Amino acid sequence: MRTAFYISDGTAITSEVFGHATLSMFPVEFNHQTIPFVETTKKANEIRKLIDTVAETSGEKPLVFFTFVNPELSDIILSSQGVCYDFLSYASEIVKRELKVKPVPKMHRTHSIHESTYDFRIDAVNYALANDDGANIKDYDEADIILVGVSRSGKTPTSLYLALQYGIKAANYPMTEDDLESGRLPKCLDNHKRKLFGLTIDPERLAAIRQERMANSKYASLRQCRIEVREVEMLFKKNKTPYLNSTRYSVEEISAKIIADTGLKRHKY
Amino acid sequence: MRTAFYISDGTAITSEVFGHATLSMFPVEFNHQTIPFVETTKKANEIRKLIDTVAETSGEKPLVFFTFVNPELSDIILSSQGVCYDFLSYASEIVKRELKVKPVPKMHRTHSIHESTYDFRIDAVNYALANDDGANIKDYDEADIILVGVSRSGKTPTSLYLALQYGIKAANYPMTEDDLESGRLPKCLDNHKRKLFGLTIDPERLAAIRQERMANSKYASLRQCRIEVREVEMLFKKNKTPYLNSTRYSVEEISAKIIADTGLKRHKY
Repeated sequence: MRTAFYISDGTAITSEVFGHATLSMFPVEFNHQTIPFVETTKKANEIRKLIDTVAETSGEKPLVFFTFVNPELSDIILSSQGVCYDFLSYASEIVKRELKVKPVPKMHRTHSIHESTYDFRIDAVNYALANDDGANIKDYDEADIILVGVSRSGKTPTSLYLALQYGIKAANYPMTEDDLESGRLPKCLDNHKRKLFGLTIDPERLAAIRQERMANSKYASLRQCRIEVREVEMLFKKNKTPYLNSTRYSVEEISAKIIADTGLKRHKY
Repeated sequence: MRTAFYISDGTAITSEVFGHATLSMFPVEFNHQTIPFVETTKKANEIRKLIDTVAETSGEKPLVFFTFVNPELSDIILSSQGVCYDFLSYASEIVKRELKVKPVPKMHRTHSIHESTYDFRIDAVNYALANDDGANIKDYDEADIILVGVSRSGKTPTSLYLALQYGIKAANYPMTEDDLESGRLPKCLDNHKRKLFGLTIDPERLAAIRQERMANSKYASLRQCRIEVREVEMLFKKNKTPYLNSTRYSVEEISAKIIADTGLKRHKY
């Protein structure tokens, strides 16, 4: 199997995201290797040797996606037997030409604590945890968004993703059978209608998820799931609550759709 | 302020990560605009017009980082007045030349639910939540890693990040004063020594974080924080528990360091 290396002087997250997006276009399996925090010539030389060893023992040149602030480290990796791609260099040339400003590379630029938005994200994680699953309805004034839906419709992972990635304070409130039977929004949400965003889900998928949690319960029965989903969607429509069906979407996709639909302000780019 | 667009037929996360990494090298402020799920020629034409309007009203060409599976959509964006960079195309040429395999672009390749690893991640998030803060010590057999440290040393955001991004099941256990006074690991961790990873933190930073949570308490006092940090570090050393000081690192950096140090298996690339 061909080896792909993702290498950087920082977390190597950018190298991974870029390399993975490139390789995912090819119908080929890869052995992925991430090597973060390559900050010295000694470490870079070790990695160069590792790349060469893989090339020699496998008979196939590894694909190497890398980025370094220090050009000395780049040169060491470029001298390996891998097919090396310094993927930011070409883009930065284009930007430089257009802006007529020279790049000023600095360490740990994109995924470090030095970003001014870092505290927002940790605050938002704490907020999401404290306001998970209807735990803390008194803090809804502070919410950027309140996700609503039946139990296990994807609210919690979405609220955590919005917090961790974007610093968005997302509370979530589970619609209980009592809420659904009454046919109206619970009182605690009345003053926050404009912050609500609904998640719904196909009853079959919901039953499968609930089954893993509480096998053979009424809660997990397809009949119960159908009733709850129908009622919650009626409630969303009645209250003009925007909503989406999470069944076929990842937490990244759900989050991106919510941000695009609501115009929520993000604290991180 | 110069506008930067991140555009894709999917979440546009890859466009954002790549564009942000490129632009962060320049000492310039940007107005960032992400436009995900551009899946039709109608939508692409709207975006082209938006780019042109920004170019005309600001007098500055927007920087446009984009990727599409459908080349018809790419052509529409390329016909705009922006400085457009189809950032995956050059890399995929290099890979194609080396592999001698043609790329088979498909929609929603990198951040969608269709990845086989998706359920791992949601399971891991549920695991992290159920095993947060020492809540559920009976499930430690299932843990990939158990983060240990004093209260507010960064365990919870790190365990959630490991789960959401990598599908790693991370429990976390807060070392209480009783644990620290006894000078030994709590019994519930005895059988899991090889899964432990310690987080420590500078006492000054810890006191500041705790102060926000419980102002003027003993818990938040610098003296108390110094004692706890000294004792927990002694315990880590005595038990040969690997650990790192989280003070100057983001949750991405802490996670990357933990994975690099422990060789933990990730379920997502």
